[in-house]
Amino acid sequence: MLVKYRIPLKYLLRFVYLDAAIVFMVSMFVFFFVRKVDFPIIPLGIPTFMGTAISLLLAFKLGQSYDRWWEARKVWGAIVNDSRSLVLQALNFHKEGKCEQTERIAMRQAAFAHSLGQSLREQSAVKGIEGFVSSEELTRVSKHKNVPLALMNEHSRDLKQMLESGKVNEYQQIQIDQTLVNLVSSMGKAERIKNTVFPTSYRLFLHVFIYVFIVLLAIALAEIDRLWEIPMLVSISLPFFMLEKTAAYLQDPFENRPTDTSMTSIAKTIEINLKQLLDREDLPDPEPVQEFYVM
Amino acid sequence: MLVKYRIPLKYLLRFVYLDAAIVFMVSMFVFFFVRKVDFPIIPLGIPTFMGTAISLLLAFKLGQSYDRWWEARKVWGAIVNDSRSLVLQALNFHKEGKCEQTERIAMRQAAFAHSLGQSLREQSAVKGIEGFVSSEELTRVSKHKNVPLALMNEHSRDLKQMLESGKVNEYQQIQIDQTLVNLVSSMGKAERIKNTVFPTSYRLFLHVFIYVFIVLLAIALAEIDRLWEIPMLVSISLPFFMLEKTAAYLQDPFENRPTDTSMTSIAKTIEINLKQLLDREDLPDPEPVQEFYVM
Amino acid sequence: MLVKYRIPLKYLLRFVYLDAAIVFMVSMFVFFFVRKVDFPIIPLGIPTFMGTAISLLLAFKLGQSYDRWWEARKVWGAIVNDSRSLVLQALNFHKEGKCEQTERIAMRQAAFAHSLGQSLREQSAVKGIEGFVSSEELTRVSKHKNVPLALMNEHSRDLKQMLESGKVNEYQQIQIDQTLVNLVSSMGKAERIKNTVFPTSYRLFLHVFIYVFIVLLAIALAEIDRLWEIPMLVSISLPFFMLEKTAAYLQDPFENRPTDTSMTSIAKTIEINLKQLLDREDLPDPEPVQEFYVM
Amino acid sequence: MLVKYRIPLKYLLRFVYLDAAIVFMVSMFVFFFVRKVDFPIIPLGIPTFMGTAISLLLAFKLGQSYDRWWEARKVWGAIVNDSRSLVLQALNFHKEGKCEQTERIAMRQAAFAHSLGQSLREQSAVKGIEGFVSSEELTRVSKHKNVPLALMNEHSRDLKQMLESGKVNEYQQIQIDQTLVNLVSSMGKAERIKNTVFPTSYRLFLHVFIYVFIVLLAIALAEIDRLWEIPMLVSISLPFFMLEKTAAYLQDPFENRPTDTSMTSIAKTIEINLKQLLDREDLPDPEPVQEFYVM
Amino acid sequence: MLVKYRIPLKYLLRFVYLDAAIVFMVSMFVFFFVRKVDFPIIPLGIPTFMGTAISLLLAFKLGQSYDRWWEARKVWGAIVNDSRSLVLQALNFHKEGKCEQTERIAMRQAAFAHSLGQSLREQSAVKGIEGFVSSEELTRVSKHKNVPLALMNEHSRDLKQMLESGKVNEYQQIQIDQTLVNLVSSMGKAERIKNTVFPTSYRLFLHVFIYVFIVLLAIALAEIDRLWEIPMLVSISLPFFMLEKTAAYLQDPFENRPTDTSMTSIAKTIEINLKQLLDREDLPDPEPVQEFYVM
Repeated sequence: MLVKYRIPLKYLLRFVYLDAAIVFMVSMFVFFFVRKVDFPIIPLGIPTFMGTAISLLLAFKLGQSYDRWWEARKVWGAIVNDSRSLVLQALNFHKEGKCEQTERIAMRQAAFAHSLGQSLREQSAVKGIEGFVSSEELTRVSKHKNVPLALMNEHSRDLKQMLESGKVNEYQQIQIDQTLVNLVSSMGKAERIKNTVFPTSYRLFLHVFIYVFIVLLAIALAEIDRLWEIPMLVSISLPFFMLEKTAAYLQDPFENRPTDTSMTSIAKTIEINLKQLLDREDLPDPEPVQEFYVM
Repeated sequence: MLVKYRIPLKYLLRFVYLDAAIVFMVSMFVFFFVRKVDFPIIPLGIPTFMGTAISLLLAFKLGQSYDRWWEARKVWGAIVNDSRSLVLQALNFHKEGKCEQTERIAMRQAAFAHSLGQSLREQSAVKGIEGFVSSEELTRVSKHKNVPLALMNEHSRDLKQMLESGKVNEYQQIQIDQTLVNLVSSMGKAERIKNTVFPTSYRLFLHVFIYVFIVLLAIALAEIDRLWEIPMLVSISLPFFMLEKTAAYLQDPFENRPTDTSMTSIAKTIEINLKQLLDREDLPDPEPVQEFYVM
Repeated sequence: MLVKYRIPLKYLLRFVYLDAAIVFMVSMFVFFFVRKVDFPIIPLGIPTFMGTAISLLLAFKLGQSYDRWWEARKVWGAIVNDSRSLVLQALNFHKEGKCEQTERIAMRQAAFAHSLGQSLREQSAVKGIEGFVSSEELTRVSKHKNVPLALMNEHSRDLKQMLESGKVNEYQQIQIDQTLVNLVSSMGKAERIKNTVFPTSYRLFLHVFIYVFIVLLAIALAEIDRLWEIPMLVSISLPFFMLEKTAAYLQDPFENRPTDTSMTSIAKTIEINLKQLLDREDLPDPEPVQEFYVM
Repeated sequence: MLVKYRIPLKYLLRFVYLDAAIVFMVSMFVFFFVRKVDFPIIPLGIPTFMGTAISLLLAFKLGQSYDRWWEARKVWGAIVNDSRSLVLQALNFHKEGKCEQTERIAMRQAAFAHSLGQSLREQSAVKGIEGFVSSEELTRVSKHKNVPLALMNEHSRDLKQMLESGKVNEYQQIQIDQTLVNLVSSMGKAERIKNTVFPTSYRLFLHVFIYVFIVLLAIALAEIDRLWEIPMLVSISLPFFMLEKTAAYLQDPFENRPTDTSMTSIAKTIEINLKQLLDREDLPDPEPVQEFYVM
Repeated sequence: MLVKYRIPLKYLLRFVYLDAAIVFMVSMFVFFFVRKVDFPIIPLGIPTFMGTAISLLLAFKLGQSYDRWWEARKVWGAIVNDSRSLVLQALNFHKEGKCEQTERIAMRQAAFAHSLGQSLREQSAVKGIEGFVSSEELTRVSKHKNVPLALMNEHSRDLKQMLESGKVNEYQQIQIDQTLVNLVSSMGKAERIKNTVFPTSYRLFLHVFIYVFIVLLAIALAEIDRLWEIPMLVSISLPFFMLEKTAAYLQDPFENRPTDTSMTSIAKTIEINLKQLLDREDLPDPEPVQEFYVM
């Protein structure tokens, strides 16, 4: 998640230099081509109405991308909430309150958050969770393609054991199970956002539209007849590319990029909350802010 | 689901050649007609404002179509989540844990996902589910017009048997029933998207609008008075048709087309997850990516 | 629900002829008035920016109308889902499975769907439900102003009887009651859409706006100074009226018009599904497609 | 709620005369000022692009206001649904069915609807509910600042008594309590819409924008140089003010105005439904339609 | 929350003076630069289409910011509702009705509302809650980084004690626990809105776009060739900055600013409601309205 308004210039340049170069070359080419070939003047109304059309489509795309990004953040917010509720329920439903079994559940829940975040970023889903689950359990869940789901299965198994040994009553089991259902659901929602490619043809045709616009604008401005035209074209079209790329980044919030949902940071918050509910003192440091973002 | 940004040119051409041909012919016709008939010049402001109006309506239509597409994907995401929850509940509520009955439920749930996907694509709803349900059950459900609903009925019957034989308690039955209610609901939502035609008059009038626009633009550009006008008209109007068709494809996501919701792939993911929860080894291969899409 | 893209010309003409006539007369009037009176030329920029403004407001109105239409369809989708769940629950919770009582519930549920659809269309709420409920019950519910609600009361009474005679346990009663709560809720949502008039002043002012636009556009185009102006004005302004009327039709989806939510068809689907769950053979024919729509 | 498309002219005039007068004076002032002072001509492109910008912001504001209005209507729809469900549950869960206690609950629920509607309109929250609750109860709830909440407390107390005297079982109590939770929630949602002022700075700046637009448009049109300019300015800018005021009215739907959510009418519908479920004959007349609206 | 339409000029000036100054200097600079350097005239169509594009993006950003603001208000509305439901449940489920334990829960719930509001505004989360919880409990919760969560843990512990001492039955415990789950969820949602920075690159690029627009507009208007250009530029561009800042303020509703969600006021409303349900007389005064806002 970007946290600073003043994004380093280096990052911004890496963001747009390719588009800027393409626009520069297109306008150079049109500039000389129009002078060589007997080309009719295009009225300025044509490219400007196209510019309006593009900004419209862009605004909608930004809206849709923002919604995906915000949905991703909501999903992780729900994971925070259900993690807290799960541990409150485990601690205060269980006949023995804070005990070996409820601690195990709480720590496994912290492991779930870390593991889910890492697997969404296509990193090892078991790295760093050794501290939270027993080595035996670690071996068991490592065999699964979907480690977070395997952790949920472990929760569910513990819950069965709690009911059978009379630590929770039958209604309490169902209530805790409901919290697990919610967590399975949030996990699936995050995977859906990760795995569903934003309609590529939409983006492709928008790009086609922007390039047609630039070419026509370059021709229409040809009568200005001076090299001033080129920086002007670049500075008019660059914001479009910048915003289009902003949309493209927002719509994929789990890609191990600075614009990501800050899953590492959220998982640590969960870990701190859960450990405090267990009265533990070994709290991790909050995730540090990088140059201008937090992961 | 399209998964690649670089869509093959062949596919794109098939996508737009018809509209391109119509625009080409309209502009040819206007080009010669205006020269023959004493036709007044139309100010350029008229077609450009219409172009803005069209892009507005198009942007809204894209938004609505995208929402349908995303809703379809959410429904299938919910089926993934509820399938996982169902099997977690069956395994860990049932007194005997993993047993013949819970395996049957899990495999039938995989069959449900495959069968629903196929019936939404108007293919045989029972093809390929022989491996998941007993032949006796297959015969029973084949008689139904709505096979996935019949499979839910089988689940529900199993659940009744589980309660009566004391394998689950009364609260657990209700909790599992709630998961079935959710699955019935997701199934119905997918059918709703499949069976509800996007308002056809909306699309028709938008097409009328675009054609009026092209004719007026062709007349307004007549003063350019050269054949350059024709490629220009085509390149201005083509993005509109491309985006309109993108919308039209997005709004019907269960049509056995490359732009479909990737139901085969999702059903296989469900199958893999459920089999791993049963510690089975006979996992299917994930659905392969076609040239530029995945089904 | 319109199901065909090619809507008959007759229907389209009935749809727009009035607006076309008004625009025709307005432009005729302006055409001659401007020639008679010493009227200043209005720059074209004025009507074109108004046209953009109108298309914006129209696009938003289309969006809101579409949302109402889609919400109506969702409500009926939820009725399908809850009808199926209700019968699955009745059959598989009831100690005797398929019996006289559960059949009664299933058939009454089919009656509910038919009755609700008819009362939303301001037709008799009891017509055609004689085949589904006993004549005694029919007399009882006919006294009510709200027949579908009375049918829900009958369901609820049956449920009480089932609990008291030990056919379902206490949790099962609550779970079935939850399904009834959902059905009462869907019924109320459909009534809300039916009874809430879309803000009329919104529509009125949009019409005022469109007429101001047409008058100003007619004046601005007066310099073209030929009768060509009149068909042009009609063809520019007609799409606006067409889309406005599309919006007006979409926003009231229960008016016994071709653009309605296809409630008869949905109620028949429910009837078929429920009868198949009862292993009955007397399935109705699906609702036939009219010329270009299905009711 | 406005129910007629033909709103009386008197109402419309009261709606816009102030804005019309201001625009008239501004254009008169500019008309003479520009002739006196040596003022440069402003190109028409400036005010027309501002007009487009304003219509955009206006369209969004209309969208947000409409959403608030529709949300208000949804909240009252939910109150209808939950009132019906509450009485169905009370009648069919209670061991004695229709009895003094269930009648009391049903009538108190009708009182709740009337009382909530009146308190949202800042009228007496207890006026007219004497017929529905005992005088003793009336005294008790009158002491509360929030009468509808006090009525919910009375419901909750009755429910406790029903459980303790064995009239409902423990699950039925929870299920009815859930309906009360929903009613408390709907009540709070209506209060939220009532008490949350739509961002005033948003409206203020939009007004600033519109006035800048009018002044610039008046200057730009100065070259027309005749008194025709003034009615034209008024007729161009009036739709903006009309639509802005429509938005302003929609966003506050509980103000005892013709554009209100029709709470009196809805509360009477609730009363009729509940009385019919009790087989009572003393139904109130439906709320009559005023000249062009229903309260 | 701003409650008055007439915002003091002082506040408005502080709101925009910086942007006004920058625009003033930019236009001064362009004014003289264009006269010095041989700079080509830019057609007005360029900046006006950019102005339209900016207003589009701005309208969308306003929409998204408004949604965040409204979501924040909804979250606090849900806290009001669940606080009321919690106390209704505690009072009417508990065997002893109003007693020392239920009073403790009600007062702690008021403390929760105050504490959450303060911690969202980065003020002390325990200030002012001494009157609501015992000093022993205060010490216990003060150790936590997340005081509201610790208060929820106290609720949950009380609930456990109530079940174990037979004051509530097993179903009632679960129903109250559900209310706690909802409160934990609302708390987490408010934290999500507080902690998630609105995409900063989006805002940055929009600013870039606005500045490119101002420079180009200044150049395009250079032909007016008089100092009138400068106030005009300022008055055209100021509404954009005002609306952009309105959006920026709306999107962060927990910053201890006049535009905040009125959390202090809402917490006091909760306190009053809960105390009245306990028949207490020591009601606090409602939060007073400041000059033009309420906190």
